[in-house]
Amino acid sequence: MTIKDIARLSGYGVSTVSRALNGHPDVNEETREKIKSIVRQYKFVPNSNARQLKQSISKSILVMVKGTFNLFFAPIIEYMQSQTDKVGYSCIVHYLNEDDDEVKLAERFCREQKPVGIVFLGINIEPFKKSIRLINVPCVLSTTYGGEIEGDKISSVSIDDVSCGKMAVDYLFDCGHKKIGVLSGSFNISYTSALRFKGCQRSFEEHGAKFDESVYETCAFSFSSAYEAANALLKKNPDITAIFAMSDTMAIGAARAIADMGKNVPDDISIIGFDGTEMAQYYNPKITTIRQPATKIAELSIKQLLDMVDGRGEPKHTLLTGELIEGESVKKIN
Amino acid sequence: MTIKDIARLSGYGVSTVSRALNGHPDVNEETREKIKSIVRQYKFVPNSNARQLKQSISKSILVMVKGTFNLFFAPIIEYMQSQTDKVGYSCIVHYLNEDDDEVKLAERFCREQKPVGIVFLGINIEPFKKSIRLINVPCVLSTTYGGEIEGDKISSVSIDDVSCGKMAVDYLFDCGHKKIGVLSGSFNISYTSALRFKGCQRSFEEHGAKFDESVYETCAFSFSSAYEAANALLKKNPDITAIFAMSDTMAIGAARAIADMGKNVPDDISIIGFDGTEMAQYYNPKITTIRQPATKIAELSIKQLLDMVDGRGEPKHTLLTGELIEGESVKKIN
Repeated sequence: MTIKDIARLSGYGVSTVSRALNGHPDVNEETREKIKSIVRQYKFVPNSNARQLKQSISKSILVMVKGTFNLFFAPIIEYMQSQTDKVGYSCIVHYLNEDDDEVKLAERFCREQKPVGIVFLGINIEPFKKSIRLINVPCVLSTTYGGEIEGDKISSVSIDDVSCGKMAVDYLFDCGHKKIGVLSGSFNISYTSALRFKGCQRSFEEHGAKFDESVYETCAFSFSSAYEAANALLKKNPDITAIFAMSDTMAIGAARAIADMGKNVPDDISIIGFDGTEMAQYYNPKITTIRQPATKIAELSIKQLLDMVDGRGEPKHTLLTGELIEGESVKKIN
Repeated sequence: MTIKDIARLSGYGVSTVSRALNGHPDVNEETREKIKSIVRQYKFVPNSNARQLKQSISKSILVMVKGTFNLFFAPIIEYMQSQTDKVGYSCIVHYLNEDDDEVKLAERFCREQKPVGIVFLGINIEPFKKSIRLINVPCVLSTTYGGEIEGDKISSVSIDDVSCGKMAVDYLFDCGHKKIGVLSGSFNISYTSALRFKGCQRSFEEHGAKFDESVYETCAFSFSSAYEAANALLKKNPDITAIFAMSDTMAIGAARAIADMGKNVPDDISIIGFDGTEMAQYYNPKITTIRQPATKIAELSIKQLLDMVDGRGEPKHTLLTGELIEGESVKKIN
């Protein structure tokens, strides 16, 4: 007697049976009762270890992740995996290089592994706005805004990157800084960087400050690239007293560059990061940052994907808010 | 005309054909020439983008990773993925929780995804010494020594954790420290911790120092757990002037705990970490550490797995050496 037999006898799908038995809230009471009555009738004993149940289910959700070494994505992946585990799906994680064609790879994996749906974590959506519609399973863009894509199988869950970028720079102005520099991701590889950049621009304008090439550098989302970029930024603009880095990883690369110049963070130069990673709290000094609600993003991404997979609800684009977390890396000079 | 046709016509397997066409050094010249002659004869044009080729191959390698948030494993996974890509396999990554039964999960994935082989990255082998032999595809334990397992399909690639643990503590004694503390992983969840612990013990003995419960604390491989453990260690033994932490993540958690006590690393308390992560170099102060050769471990793990998959070579257990990397976190007091 396996879960497949229960499915056959009850007339529901294996995944519905699994979720009913696992106490998933999305199964309605009538369905759950019907399934449970069959379980009782046939004395089916679901192993107390839910894993046993899942062994007869091969449905999987594919999570495609941009880059490997990302302090911010790690807990999101972990949470997504635990969520898909709970509802009886297996979770397959694929890492992508910066130069991979994400949509082509997704199509290939759809053929090979037949996932019921795909989460794109940190995709650079700009080049794929058209091709992503060709993928024939539901997709959720996680941490990337997808509202500009027309597609009936595509949702997104992200923060409002424009207003969060603005929030970071506003904070530096509010702390009394007048010469502010920005470390930005390259727009070619990161659409979210372009959005945060727009927020920076607005903040500079509102504070009557000039926003030109002398006040920003672009770099990759890595320690080493941000290290180089911070050196270049401070060389071409030695008056800068505060830096907004578009990720905590970049902020740490910049902090190390400043230490290697023999200067102090925040006494000589202040830094605000982005993401709200655990690492930022353990750095010395603690990095002030804009926290993205990682758990909420993971939770809503999986929920929205499963809703689409199960034919419930329309695709939607959810915008969440970020939160400023004060650390020790920004000096108040007013 | 697909790669499968070439395989059929040449009498070789699809993966051999793929590797021959991709210039993989493991294919012998005679085989390569035979395959190429068929390619020429039938005017088969392998797409210059190797990915096209791989689209007709669904063979996959499974990488099972202990935990998600591991600064040391991230580049290893990245490198393994690039290596498997090169030889035309897809690489499926699964993260495991601490309480997962790794072997049972591996068996499940074998049924569902039919990988040609499995890499266990960071497995705690102790409870699975017997059951792992039941897995019916070749396995490589990566970063974990597997020499005590009798099995004709199991290899391992790791550093010599005993001597590397000893190397770390020897260095602290050599720098003039007399009261040394240790932050160790729990033996229940980490076999490598037990090996490094043995190395610590030897170093203490050789230096005539007492190694009892007052000089070590166990914790998880996380910032927060190491933070707590460092506080406990320094509370029960306030004389400690140097700490060996069994990972860089632990070292950073301890460094933050020391900073929060109002003390300085390394002026008040020195720290040496383990792994040699990029993060250690960007921390403030730079963390002195024992570097594991991550790229070499990844490369040999995949090579050994593919050798077993292709029926070449016996299982073997490769021990590599770690290297001390001096940062700024250990004070020389002699």
